Amino acid sequence: MTASPPALVCTPIGVVALDDPHPATPPASQAADAPDVTATVTVRDDLVPGLLGLDRYPWVWLVTWLHDQPPPAERPLQMVPRATAATGEVQGVFASRFPLRPNPIGLHLVRLLAVTGPVVAFAGVDLVDGTPVLDIKPWFADCDLPADP
Amino acid sequence: MTASPPALVCTPIGVVALDDPHPATPPASQAADAPDVTATVTVRDDLVPGLLGLDRYPWVWLVTWLHDQPPPAERPLQMVPRATAATGEVQGVFASRFPLRPNPIGLHLVRLLAVTGPVVAFAGVDLVDGTPVLDIKPWFADCDLPADP
Repeated sequence: MTASPPALVCTPIGVVALDDPHPATPPASQAADAPDVTATVTVRDDLVPGLLGLDRYPWVWLVTWLHDQPPPAERPLQMVPRATAATGEVQGVFASRFPLRPNPIGLHLVRLLAVTGPVVAFAGVDLVDGTPVLDIKPWFADCDLPADP
Repeated sequence: MTASPPALVCTPIGVVALDDPHPATPPASQAADAPDVTATVTVRDDLVPGLLGLDRYPWVWLVTWLHDQPPPAERPLQMVPRATAATGEVQGVFASRFPLRPNPIGLHLVRLLAVTGPVVAFAGVDLVDGTPVLDIKPWFADCDLPADP
């Protein structure tokens, strides 16, 4: 693909607020590393009907816009991510979960705590306060679990 | 959140091509339902360095833009999705994996077959030919597996 691609426009459905917006330690690099850190997503008023039934799912995906990024040209396409830190192997950004990405879309599996009106409370936070949320999806074993991991 | 939210602009990193672009049956509604259907993502030339090391991972996420959508106002916020089809329970879009969404972002766990230059071959396709891809990420047990599903 070499032709100039079209721009696709997302609009935040809500925003993350950490229960403690100024933690003493920086956010974990993966949600699973901070299982006890709690936060909320407050969804836009016009989208609250979209939350119906979410509270039946103990685990949900947050799809976020990792907004605190340098311009695209300054985001590295290769780096040594956490997964290969022990060996120092350089990896491409698409072979990593590194937060600086061509499209800075984050994917976070969090434990759902409660849904109250527009407020979705969850635990397991690797996000900074104010992160825009693009989507919420339930975690489903039949599509999110490898057949042979 | 009631103020008008900012627009966030994504640019496709590549495009999906089905090996058989005109299958006799429609695409599966989840990748896990079509494990033998194969396809490729051809990544933009300028982003090929970002694929370095991807071939070590047997399972990867494709984050896509589900492009074949009606305008946002015509996308339902509630419907009876597949997960509750048996009971007929209405669910919110964020409690479903329904493809019509406020931000039409798709999340697909696929089996990686090969990475050859800009071409990422994979199996397990619930996508239509020509779907734009926004991101590729490795599946990691330590962040993508619920602690107690």
